[in-house]
Amino acid sequence: MSNTNDKTGVVAISADQGRIDYAAERARAQFDVEEMRAFLLGGPDRAAKMALAYRIIERDPILSFQLEGGHPFDLTRPELRAKTMAQLRRVVEVRRAFKDKELDDLFLTAMCELSESFSMRLFVTEALFVRSFRLFGTRAQQAEWVPKILAWDSIGCFAMTELGHSSNLRGIETTATYDAANRDFIIDTPSLMATKIWIGMAGETATHTACLARLLVRGQDCGLHWFVVPLRDPETGRLMPGVTAGDVGAKAGRNGLDNGWIQFTHVRVPRDAMLARWAHVAADGTFHAGLNPEDADPANNVSPAAAAGLAYAGLIPERLEITRGIPMMLNQALTIAVRYAAGRRQGPAGNPQVLDYPSIQAALMPALARMHAVMAAAGAVWTTWHAMEEGGPNVLLQGLPDMHALSAGIKATVTWDGADILERCRRAMGGHAYSRYNAIADYIGDYGVMTTGGGDNAVLVQQTARYVLAMARKAMADPAKFAAAVAPTDSVAYLPSAVALAAEGTPPAVSDWTSLAQLHVVLQWLAVAKVQALGMSLAAAPKGGMTRAWNAAHADISAVAQLHTHQYLARAIRIRAGDLPPTTRDSAASPAALQPTFMHLARLYLLDVLRQFARDLLLHGWAREAVEQLDAEFADACATVRDQAMPLVDAFGHPDWILQAPLARADGDGYRAYLATIQNAPNCFGPPKYWDAEVRPLTAPAGRSRL
Amino acid sequence: MSNTNDKTGVVAISADQGRIDYAAERARAQFDVEEMRAFLLGGPDRAAKMALAYRIIERDPILSFQLEGGHPFDLTRPELRAKTMAQLRRVVEVRRAFKDKELDDLFLTAMCELSESFSMRLFVTEALFVRSFRLFGTRAQQAEWVPKILAWDSIGCFAMTELGHSSNLRGIETTATYDAANRDFIIDTPSLMATKIWIGMAGETATHTACLARLLVRGQDCGLHWFVVPLRDPETGRLMPGVTAGDVGAKAGRNGLDNGWIQFTHVRVPRDAMLARWAHVAADGTFHAGLNPEDADPANNVSPAAAAGLAYAGLIPERLEITRGIPMMLNQALTIAVRYAAGRRQGPAGNPQVLDYPSIQAALMPALARMHAVMAAAGAVWTTWHAMEEGGPNVLLQGLPDMHALSAGIKATVTWDGADILERCRRAMGGHAYSRYNAIADYIGDYGVMTTGGGDNAVLVQQTARYVLAMARKAMADPAKFAAAVAPTDSVAYLPSAVALAAEGTPPAVSDWTSLAQLHVVLQWLAVAKVQALGMSLAAAPKGGMTRAWNAAHADISAVAQLHTHQYLARAIRIRAGDLPPTTRDSAASPAALQPTFMHLARLYLLDVLRQFARDLLLHGWAREAVEQLDAEFADACATVRDQAMPLVDAFGHPDWILQAPLARADGDGYRAYLATIQNAPNCFGPPKYWDAEVRPLTAPAGRSRL
Repeated sequence: MSNTNDKTGVVAISADQGRIDYAAERARAQFDVEEMRAFLLGGPDRAAKMALAYRIIERDPILSFQLEGGHPFDLTRPELRAKTMAQLRRVVEVRRAFKDKELDDLFLTAMCELSESFSMRLFVTEALFVRSFRLFGTRAQQAEWVPKILAWDSIGCFAMTELGHSSNLRGIETTATYDAANRDFIIDTPSLMATKIWIGMAGETATHTACLARLLVRGQDCGLHWFVVPLRDPETGRLMPGVTAGDVGAKAGRNGLDNGWIQFTHVRVPRDAMLARWAHVAADGTFHAGLNPEDADPANNVSPAAAAGLAYAGLIPERLEITRGIPMMLNQALTIAVRYAAGRRQGPAGNPQVLDYPSIQAALMPALARMHAVMAAAGAVWTTWHAMEEGGPNVLLQGLPDMHALSAGIKATVTWDGADILERCRRAMGGHAYSRYNAIADYIGDYGVMTTGGGDNAVLVQQTARYVLAMARKAMADPAKFAAAVAPTDSVAYLPSAVALAAEGTPPAVSDWTSLAQLHVVLQWLAVAKVQALGMSLAAAPKGGMTRAWNAAHADISAVAQLHTHQYLARAIRIRAGDLPPTTRDSAASPAALQPTFMHLARLYLLDVLRQFARDLLLHGWAREAVEQLDAEFADACATVRDQAMPLVDAFGHPDWILQAPLARADGDGYRAYLATIQNAPNCFGPPKYWDAEVRPLTAPAGRSRL
Repeated sequence: MSNTNDKTGVVAISADQGRIDYAAERARAQFDVEEMRAFLLGGPDRAAKMALAYRIIERDPILSFQLEGGHPFDLTRPELRAKTMAQLRRVVEVRRAFKDKELDDLFLTAMCELSESFSMRLFVTEALFVRSFRLFGTRAQQAEWVPKILAWDSIGCFAMTELGHSSNLRGIETTATYDAANRDFIIDTPSLMATKIWIGMAGETATHTACLARLLVRGQDCGLHWFVVPLRDPETGRLMPGVTAGDVGAKAGRNGLDNGWIQFTHVRVPRDAMLARWAHVAADGTFHAGLNPEDADPANNVSPAAAAGLAYAGLIPERLEITRGIPMMLNQALTIAVRYAAGRRQGPAGNPQVLDYPSIQAALMPALARMHAVMAAAGAVWTTWHAMEEGGPNVLLQGLPDMHALSAGIKATVTWDGADILERCRRAMGGHAYSRYNAIADYIGDYGVMTTGGGDNAVLVQQTARYVLAMARKAMADPAKFAAAVAPTDSVAYLPSAVALAAEGTPPAVSDWTSLAQLHVVLQWLAVAKVQALGMSLAAAPKGGMTRAWNAAHADISAVAQLHTHQYLARAIRIRAGDLPPTTRDSAASPAALQPTFMHLARLYLLDVLRQFARDLLLHGWAREAVEQLDAEFADACATVRDQAMPLVDAFGHPDWILQAPLARADGDGYRAYLATIQNAPNCFGPPKYWDAEVRPLTAPAGRSRL
């Protein structure tokens, strides 16, 4: 419906063109969108339950945004806070009627898709706070606390970070001093720098916190432990005596969440406020390291040293959440950007769809592929983690080093990639992404914390690289022994074969650019080549200069962690593509009808990651011609996925009221919806309140009217 | 002042440590900070005037933020709008008393440093709106309008972009139809997609707009021209009849600026509303292309075709503003990030300053160098542009192709780099950048528009690359003729020598890594190598496939434009370093005492840019060992600049009340200031207003109090 204006000769694009273009895009689908949707959600039953969850939210004026006027982006911070807490309360009410655990899960997922602030409020209490009891609490403590937290009888937060110590737990200064005479602990913030800060829900709503503090017993430092400390009166919301806490105020995003700061001044909590699974203080003031006798189970006993290690395991699920949280947000951003690009026509040569430009394809198509790789990996990591948790402390301990390194690598790699993808989505929408009404701007604001919060990426990649380095050394020293010791789903399982390949001296050539296996081998080889280079540069460090050499190697450390993570993700998406058989700790293979689509996505994913590291491929001996071929294959793979881009984002299944981006309306009528949204904004048509005070004195000092 | 806690053994960092660390940083200065400051501002006189300008603003409760409570980041959108307009009105009042043009300029610069929203409001009227008269208006129109705009008697905006046509002026649909019977034009918006949108100041305040429309005379399309159209009654702010205009609402940033949208419905404007310098419509309805006889000047006459070209010259200054606007914002962000990194101590090995980590140095130091290169180039491009404007139409026309391509390349390259640098600043501050009180978050929000607005970067790099490609062909065809025809300050002046170098077949080796000349030659060689590769890939396009081949070459096009731009910027910073003699159209050399510092910055700049294109260096035959050496030299250059980082940001001279980032207080007492800012935020200590409605029903349904 582009038409040439009779008078001007200008080829004008009609606002109706979007509907036509969207229909044409959907006609290109080479897979069944509903089948893909159901697969991504875990089956047709779950898809039906998700549809029900959406219906429950859409029709509830408290849960949804659109029934109350549909302008969530114009809410002030206090309004957003109230709305988000109202959603939480309503969610608690709605869930009481649920008889179905899956519906409950999917209902929460849908709410988290709708609001990042809601998602974080929920996560802080039901994941972080509950998990601190499950990991660090005795059975009795779990039995006492977990049910009332899940009923939101107590609203809890997770006070770890201090003003002076973000990622360095060793520096934690808050103290918990045992007073044997009174059989209680005194919690205290000794300095300004020890102020707990950025604590979600501590700003306005939490009644309790789990607080990480240094335990002092009889003048001895007994290490870091968790304590439950009341913050506010559950009835009035007034701060408890000795608790100085407040809101952190204006933030880049998530303004519906009340991040806060806390200072404790001589706050007494009872002896059972210490989460005492892995260590406890007897009433007489004797400190006992190791599994609490109350939880004694000879089969699962662990040493005090191991218990200390387990205390850090609590951070792993937060990192693994990334595999669900990032696609939850970025699939929406990609839906918006892809739909915009499909509905936007621009350019000198016949106004093509923006989606037809190779530059836009190169920006958005690999992003779709990366998100599918992350979703595939989510199944594998969570299955593995749940098996570790359920296996008891010794099973957990055995799996911890690999899971710790992998979760750190995933958190860093996926959140860095996500920041990059969001910026591409923004740029793909031109100026219209600057309007908050198209949602991307708020995703970017909300997202700001992802690369630095929950463990700074720059620190996490060091944890991953250190582990991979140690494992590579073992694999080089005795490949057979190493291979026998690792499970096929361990993140380091590829090391023996990749080490052998690296030893050949010739970089692996790609003879078939459609072979996922060949591309995957190159990725694994490069990971090992980078690890070996890192090892060599560290080995050359002078005596006493190891810390300096390690810090200087930051770029290689980062590359090792990312390559290692990507080769793990690649396995997961290859399984979805039917290219590798899954084990019990992997994601499931996809239905046969979907496998060709996953093949395209997996291929693009691998090509894109290799291209990201093209400089390293060349430095480690890959031929220039191979990199040029890589570029050509990448462009080809982008064009292939481009044809399926609209069906792929349709299969994410986000309704318009979740996306909240009028320009990306599913029916293609975006421009009308966008302008209508703008026109319905508060006081769109003015004059503004400040006209008489600030404008008129300039433009009409003597009272001239032009009307 | 780190001290070991007696009880815990924890090495705690005192909040007083910042003062000590800042003093130590400043003691490292190898140049005089005041001398650098004066040089960057254009001399000691100008530095003194800037200090006065700061004093005027700091003490004025309307202009500044801090006197009214110091919480600008907590203002709502309506409050920000009113504040920004109040600042504008106050600025008009203050300037009436000025007798000094330099003070006036510096005063505006200082205000623009303080507020991006203010800056854009000022820019829209005093730059865009005024410039449309200066470029497209007759002398009579200029004489009538420019004084009253500069007095803010009329508030003007610049209505170019339409909803359906962002970067493609050929698609503009708004019409201006000449009605000979009534001797006026009828301005009309024919469709939804022709709605003018994103127009700064059109949302609430503009009384007039310059409107780009397609001129229709006697049924003939006479091309695009500019018309002055009243929008609002200057007395009441009511919309003029036929004008439908409103605010675009919530945006990612710049919420003190009222971006708007406009639809015209049969709006009549008089014949002299057409800006008629380059074409006009006689009263009888005859369209005349070419210089208006009213402006006749035989020496400066231009052809109608040339006049059409000049109509687009209006976009160039907006692009060149980037060379001032980006450092204005990013130098502040870098000041904040560098001071944070100097005052933050963190890490297992003795809590070093974060600034001592090579990863942080690699993020922030090249950013300082890039901003100095941009500032150096600002002098050159503006000198050249002013000479072109003052030389009359023929001089302007002669210089247009080079300036057009260069300005497009600068806009794209510098704004892409700026987005990257802002994200690095954010990440260097860890979680604390997520607080809006540390300013970076708002810079990122404000910045969102830079890469897509004022010409989408993806389009601009094509303009630059197309020009460089054409010029390289000429330089290859007849190097001597080409060299004789270009001025030494033309952006393409390097082509003959670089083409000759490329013809030798061996990539230029670097024998002295401290030689700016050698590094610059590599950059120029790579630019030509990429241009030639681009030309070859286009030459291989099948018949009729040129558009397709061009679009497919997007990555090379982008690289060519960026390399071309960087080699121009490199010349400017080499001149500052005393490494090249300046011509009359270059930036000035710096005082001898500053040249060693500029040498370090210029070296780091060149190394950083080459490193950015390491993949291309390798693909075009650079040795692997050279790239490895490049990495080592880069790390070394970062460490060298790191020692001067604090003096360098001090020399930007931004007072604390401009930076508005308590953690980056100049005196090093950031943590106390940060916490005090948080504690002074509205309703920090709660309980929140929604407690009784939304929290208490969960936590105290039966009315339990824990107090």
